[in-house]
Amino acid sequence: MTDLLIRNIRPMGGPAADLLVRGGLIAAIGPDLPAEGAAVEDGAGALAVPGLIDAHTHLDKTTWGMGWHVNDQNATLRGRIDYERENRMALGIDPVRQPLRHALLLAAHGATHIRSHVDIDTDHGLAIFHGLLEAREKLAGVIDIEIVAFPQSGIMTRAGTIDLLDAALAEGAEVVGGIDPCGMDRDPKGHLDAVFGLAEKHGKPIDIHLHETGDLGAFDMEEIFARTEALGMQGKVAISHAFALGAPDTARMQALIDRIAALDIAILTTGAPSATVPLILRLKEAGIRVGAGCDGIRDTWGPWGKPDMLHRAEVIGMRNGFRRDEDLEYALHVCSTGGAEVMGLPGHRLAIGDAADLCLIEAMTLAHAVADTAPRTLTVKGGKVTARGGEIVVPGVVIP
Amino acid sequence: MTDLLIRNIRPMGGPAADLLVRGGLIAAIGPDLPAEGAAVEDGAGALAVPGLIDAHTHLDKTTWGMGWHVNDQNATLRGRIDYERENRMALGIDPVRQPLRHALLLAAHGATHIRSHVDIDTDHGLAIFHGLLEAREKLAGVIDIEIVAFPQSGIMTRAGTIDLLDAALAEGAEVVGGIDPCGMDRDPKGHLDAVFGLAEKHGKPIDIHLHETGDLGAFDMEEIFARTEALGMQGKVAISHAFALGAPDTARMQALIDRIAALDIAILTTGAPSATVPLILRLKEAGIRVGAGCDGIRDTWGPWGKPDMLHRAEVIGMRNGFRRDEDLEYALHVCSTGGAEVMGLPGHRLAIGDAADLCLIEAMTLAHAVADTAPRTLTVKGGKVTARGGEIVVPGVVIP
Repeated sequence: MTDLLIRNIRPMGGPAADLLVRGGLIAAIGPDLPAEGAAVEDGAGALAVPGLIDAHTHLDKTTWGMGWHVNDQNATLRGRIDYERENRMALGIDPVRQPLRHALLLAAHGATHIRSHVDIDTDHGLAIFHGLLEAREKLAGVIDIEIVAFPQSGIMTRAGTIDLLDAALAEGAEVVGGIDPCGMDRDPKGHLDAVFGLAEKHGKPIDIHLHETGDLGAFDMEEIFARTEALGMQGKVAISHAFALGAPDTARMQALIDRIAALDIAILTTGAPSATVPLILRLKEAGIRVGAGCDGIRDTWGPWGKPDMLHRAEVIGMRNGFRRDEDLEYALHVCSTGGAEVMGLPGHRLAIGDAADLCLIEAMTLAHAVADTAPRTLTVKGGKVTARGGEIVVPGVVIP
Repeated sequence: MTDLLIRNIRPMGGPAADLLVRGGLIAAIGPDLPAEGAAVEDGAGALAVPGLIDAHTHLDKTTWGMGWHVNDQNATLRGRIDYERENRMALGIDPVRQPLRHALLLAAHGATHIRSHVDIDTDHGLAIFHGLLEAREKLAGVIDIEIVAFPQSGIMTRAGTIDLLDAALAEGAEVVGGIDPCGMDRDPKGHLDAVFGLAEKHGKPIDIHLHETGDLGAFDMEEIFARTEALGMQGKVAISHAFALGAPDTARMQALIDRIAALDIAILTTGAPSATVPLILRLKEAGIRVGAGCDGIRDTWGPWGKPDMLHRAEVIGMRNGFRRDEDLEYALHVCSTGGAEVMGLPGHRLAIGDAADLCLIEAMTLAHAVADTAPRTLTVKGGKVTARGGEIVVPGVVIP
């Protein structure tokens, strides 16, 4: 593998430097590094940051590139779930093409890693999961995809779902998913016992969607805490959305945050502008690992979202009321290194010895990059250039 | 003035048509209109909508194009106001250049009208207002700017402010501004009597910033209602932000909305993602005129915002939890025709006889345009092309 020398970049917005990649790792950062036979990229003074990470998305759901999906549903959460399950195949949401499209657009916008939930239900069995596995294989070396086996339609009320999740975990899904233990199955004990039981059986971590708010969401969290502690799963559990943490400040809220910190549970946020999202500076203060994701983009659920984690940093920063540069930098952090911390990836801090997963951004400062949704000029994955000027440049790989 | 024929557009997302402009007005819309000596533009199948309208902004505040302003202030609202007033000139926020830059970027993104507040205070007198007047004159025929004489630093606690506002209204400001009657001056009666007194004296409408929430904001509104009714100013008062209307639903909230509708008070929203914003569908149901604005963009207050009303439609739509196409279309409406309704402009609905103020958007549907922040391919103001492909194309006019 040829070395790669990226000239004239500003790592994390600091002074100009060169960055040398050797064997897929960052080997040196400093001024005027010798090329010594390496391939050379001109950074042109761009910022360099670790590769962006979409740590909460649904690659299997997007209608991106398929023509406009008209949404005329006045639906509840349950209604959206049912509508999608019943119509996705007829609408032509191909389980291979759409994940490829979505993931490559993320890479074109500077991403190097994805954690994607994938719908597993008794209507489709493992078909959608298998599509994502196929897409992942095609994207090997371009962008890493970690898969959450996700019971979108519930577990307990749809007999056979546990076996399907079990099979997906045996076939390569890395994470056990779950969703709204009370509202989805009307059986929080059954739902969470199933999720934690699968995690224990397969020795795999957990990532649970939690849209439930107020006392209901707090109750869910207490049940998640109890099982995390009982099974010794500290550091292995993530809660996505966690809207229950976005309620007005109370002693109870702080008690939840303290327990999340003590059990080393991670939080994944999408900064949903119309929901009660956790204030990420409070999580940061408590020492909690925080990652972020675009969630579903332009799918049958709704029209919003772009395959771009810098756009997501803007959404999260605005939703959190950030104004100071330091806080915008934290919004960028959760869309990159923060995701790596949640997913358990080593490094990802642009340090010597880290995997050479990074992107260049044409911006004055890190805060400017976020506020401007600034152009990504180069994406590098494992030391190889995957995108340049927003276009995928991997031989043989095209956005379908 | 040469006629203008725009071929192959989809007015409001409908079937393909041509649009003929004669004497600055829309003269015909239909298939295969004859050119008859008109200048011809190829719409290439783009959507056509009325010109976008930023009905709540601060052209005098932006640092756009000046290098990155680092925000390290952990400031309150009052702290941000004071910081800006004390530092704006030293920072080089030129009262002519910055409004020119901001307004032209809005035009490049499809805007044809702006309502801008301008800071009037006893430190700067009318200097900033005069800068905006100069910028407005340079932009005659390119984009219309309506000016609100805005007491950003308060009225009652800074003696002399009333006289300055009075002078600005005599010199061409069209609207009387006000801000947070309780918190800014600690004298809501004095503040509102001054604002309504100036409006009565000059026969001009009112637009009041109201960030105050809960019971305090409701109290402010009641005081605004009382004066609106007493002075017969129905249809002449607007409340900007109106965060007090974003509280959870209560009988009191509906009573406020009913009074706003009865007095024909308009609401201007920015969809602020971290504030309690009014839910605009509730205002729509009540028959209230609703416009929108980008507010300050990239200024000493904060880093967010873009000079683009389609980006604002996205922010507003996401904040309001919109998912259905019909609702996204309403988000676009408030960023265009809605603003015209608030400002009292006639027409602005792409109808025969309306002023030829419009823009073309490269998108599949109106909802797609909003979700995609889709490219603007042409801006037409009074029948003249002002921007093409996102670039200003008026002879002699350049973005400074």
